[in-house]
Amino acid sequence: MKLASFKHDGRATYGVAQADRYLQPPADFLNRYPDLAAVLRANAQRELEQAAISSGISIQVAATQALPVLPTPQKFICVGLNYKTHVAETKRDDSEYPALFVRFADSLAANGDVVHRPSFSERFDWEGELAVVIGKEGRAISQAQAFDHVAGYACFNDITVRDWQRHTHQWTPGKNFPGTGPLGPWLVTADEVPDVNALTLETRVNGEVMQKASLADLIFTIPVLIEYISRFTPLSPGDVIATGTPGGVGDRRTPPVYMKDGDVVEVEITGLGILQNRIGTAA
Amino acid sequence: MKLASFKHDGRATYGVAQADRYLQPPADFLNRYPDLAAVLRANAQRELEQAAISSGISIQVAATQALPVLPTPQKFICVGLNYKTHVAETKRDDSEYPALFVRFADSLAANGDVVHRPSFSERFDWEGELAVVIGKEGRAISQAQAFDHVAGYACFNDITVRDWQRHTHQWTPGKNFPGTGPLGPWLVTADEVPDVNALTLETRVNGEVMQKASLADLIFTIPVLIEYISRFTPLSPGDVIATGTPGGVGDRRTPPVYMKDGDVVEVEITGLGILQNRIGTAA
Repeated sequence: MKLASFKHDGRATYGVAQADRYLQPPADFLNRYPDLAAVLRANAQRELEQAAISSGISIQVAATQALPVLPTPQKFICVGLNYKTHVAETKRDDSEYPALFVRFADSLAANGDVVHRPSFSERFDWEGELAVVIGKEGRAISQAQAFDHVAGYACFNDITVRDWQRHTHQWTPGKNFPGTGPLGPWLVTADEVPDVNALTLETRVNGEVMQKASLADLIFTIPVLIEYISRFTPLSPGDVIATGTPGGVGDRRTPPVYMKDGDVVEVEITGLGILQNRIGTAA
Repeated sequence: MKLASFKHDGRATYGVAQADRYLQPPADFLNRYPDLAAVLRANAQRELEQAAISSGISIQVAATQALPVLPTPQKFICVGLNYKTHVAETKRDDSEYPALFVRFADSLAANGDVVHRPSFSERFDWEGELAVVIGKEGRAISQAQAFDHVAGYACFNDITVRDWQRHTHQWTPGKNFPGTGPLGPWLVTADEVPDVNALTLETRVNGEVMQKASLADLIFTIPVLIEYISRFTPLSPGDVIATGTPGGVGDRRTPPVYMKDGDVVEVEITGLGILQNRIGTAA
């Protein structure tokens, strides 16, 4: 099942994506669970699917405006260096632990959004990633139980303002410009992804493949990440872990390649769809 | 005016602190502005003060349970190295920019809360700080306008699990254990703090002074921080900037000193009160 958040008639809502339509549950369901995070908290995904299919209510995707899959996650935790190819290109040593930083909710964007490069930086770079959406509360979750806490997956583009990322050793600024983290197009529920290791991620800029990797190449696997993170902070339904980007970022190329106005950047992951965004005039 | 958040009769609420009492506005005011962040968003601090004084409603502090001054800030941004004495003891070079990291709201604690060291780390360290509470929305705020965006100030203790802070170069894990960031006892409104540079910060453990510094010694001043941060992320009422800790942390002493069960840690800042917490049995 593919779950999407979107705006319709000026109102934030959600539905089950099917071809060019979103199927919606009846109003009483939407009142009970006002957003996808509420659906996850109640573990009501199956109920949502049945209600959406039987309601007969559907909305043309073209009549909606996409939102980030989870518009306001409480915790959006990003992993910094999680593929050997990317560790190598940054010339860093291997680490015993994952490097973690935080994105604020307002740094996210939707599939199809124009992503604005700040006018004072030319170093606007892609980072295709697999995002894991948490579906069940937990602290100190064991690796063996980790997948029980996963609601599903989405494509993520951790678009980075490289010079602001490296103002200091802490990466917060370059990772938090508004609307620079597209997440979507859907949350694909975990039952449709029996083996994460079988997934392939590809990042394209204007159709040219810039990153290509197997999710089997994660240094810190999803269970390891969930165990480590949940030892220091509780995870809740709607929280997101972005699992890191493979080699091939623009900043580490010779010469470096950055995204310019009008460029189209896509992140595609097997079965999770294509997350496509255009780079806009510097704001 | 001193504004406090607290629980009374099992309900989260707020009021104006006066000696051993909280003065509260009438119920219609509390319904209109359900928490202090809502008061700040409406810039209704004066209205709150008048309503609280004229209502005749007061609650004994002893009958309440303290909450962090802002229980759920959307953005809690911490500055890493902002006093020369602390930069020197960490043997780091000066930086042109402030090092910034993020705390999740559930990592905060209230004045008087028992702060729990995780059972798997002995390296539980204090960091007394001045916290700046934002009162007015803004992006790319100039230094000249920065103080117009400040609602007030509070004491903050950025209690850190040192080994988890240093698992990698990104400090997120050691700064986000639940309930390790006491913020309080009150938000003191900006009109009562005409000159931040005149403030002195002191951190004591079991009465012994561990840190003492003038706020005039900040490397990156409050206007510089607000300008820099608001260039990459919008600031909103209720957001908090923790301005960094001076020299004297336990981890950099010879030999190192850490907080043990039963220790009492206090952060006191001129005119802002004393933020006191006991360290609890490892959880």
